[in-house]
Amino acid sequence: MPATAAASSIDFWFEFASSYSYVAASVIDARGAAAGVAVRWRPFLLGPIFARQGWRDSPFNINPVKGRYMWRDVERRCAALGVPFARPTRFPQHTLLAARVATVAGDEGWGPAFGLAAFRANFAEGCDLGERATVAALIAALGRDPHAVLARAEGEDVKARLRDETARAEALGVFGAPTFTVGDELFWGGDRIDDALDRARGL
Amino acid sequence: MPATAAASSIDFWFEFASSYSYVAASVIDARGAAAGVAVRWRPFLLGPIFARQGWRDSPFNINPVKGRYMWRDVERRCAALGVPFARPTRFPQHTLLAARVATVAGDEGWGPAFGLAAFRANFAEGCDLGERATVAALIAALGRDPHAVLARAEGEDVKARLRDETARAEALGVFGAPTFTVGDELFWGGDRIDDALDRARGL
Repeated sequence: MPATAAASSIDFWFEFASSYSYVAASVIDARGAAAGVAVRWRPFLLGPIFARQGWRDSPFNINPVKGRYMWRDVERRCAALGVPFARPTRFPQHTLLAARVATVAGDEGWGPAFGLAAFRANFAEGCDLGERATVAALIAALGRDPHAVLARAEGEDVKARLRDETARAEALGVFGAPTFTVGDELFWGGDRIDDALDRARGL
Repeated sequence: MPATAAASSIDFWFEFASSYSYVAASVIDARGAAAGVAVRWRPFLLGPIFARQGWRDSPFNINPVKGRYMWRDVERRCAALGVPFARPTRFPQHTLLAARVATVAGDEGWGPAFGLAAFRANFAEGCDLGERATVAALIAALGRDPHAVLARAEGEDVKARLRDETARAEALGVFGAPTFTVGDELFWGGDRIDDALDRARGL
């Protein structure tokens, strides 16, 4: 039933500092389209959720053995998927401003375009999302006015919306990124994309 | 080249307390056979490796939100794969004796049979591997003499071998289970089985 399939959707919860979110962001729209499932990009902040787990840094830095594995694994995944990758010099990056801009972009229909551009800046192009100039350049490259967009992104309503989204993610049981949700069913990690899409299609 | 494929192998590092090791153990021999890759079952202890990460309990207990997700995810994986599953009443279980017996079983050619039986006892049959009687019954059900096997399992050489295997896992960069290794290339988690098998086949 194409009508039902077209009506189904998944939520893609992502954090710009997350390497595996980058890999997922690089494939999710194509995978969703192939499955006939709409993908809703939902930026949130992992920092406050990690802080509640007692972490003040990426778990991949806290445990360097796990971190070493992660970088090798991400490199392999990207190579297998044909996704560009260059290990960032700074990890994790400060992603608050980029997440606020992604919130604005989502409202205005350019969420995935900005999301992908910001992820690539971090994980393929050696840029630092913590730099305001980096974020402004990404906005400009998408044909938008950086000054106007940044002003909206730093308005109180957008700040509050991003906090609310983070709280919503946490309420859903999100503890890492990427996470895909279909209703209240969670799927953690890019390896669960197909499961999430199947769930959205009622399979 | 079937000759090359048949000669290739992967090491399957598992811990009987690990839920995702159970899922992997349930499918790995069939997946290896289908790929023409031999699978070497290598029991080790995750406890000492977790302790070095500062954990004295399963990360799924330390973080109950992640734990809740894990149980739901394992339940879904098992349902999808047709693998029996019943959430253990005790988690994690004390697996030292079972790992020692698995070491003996590996020497004597019944490693996978014991491994699978012990995993099922823990994650499908409501048994506690921390009970000596449980382990003895598993040995007996495989047509072996529990008294003789347990005596070998608790000999100094087997105790030392299991310690050495755990040290070898750690030296390879193992930080969780299941992990698959092909030479010094690591693949963490059941979602990387196909990648590990491809690597073993030189793909």
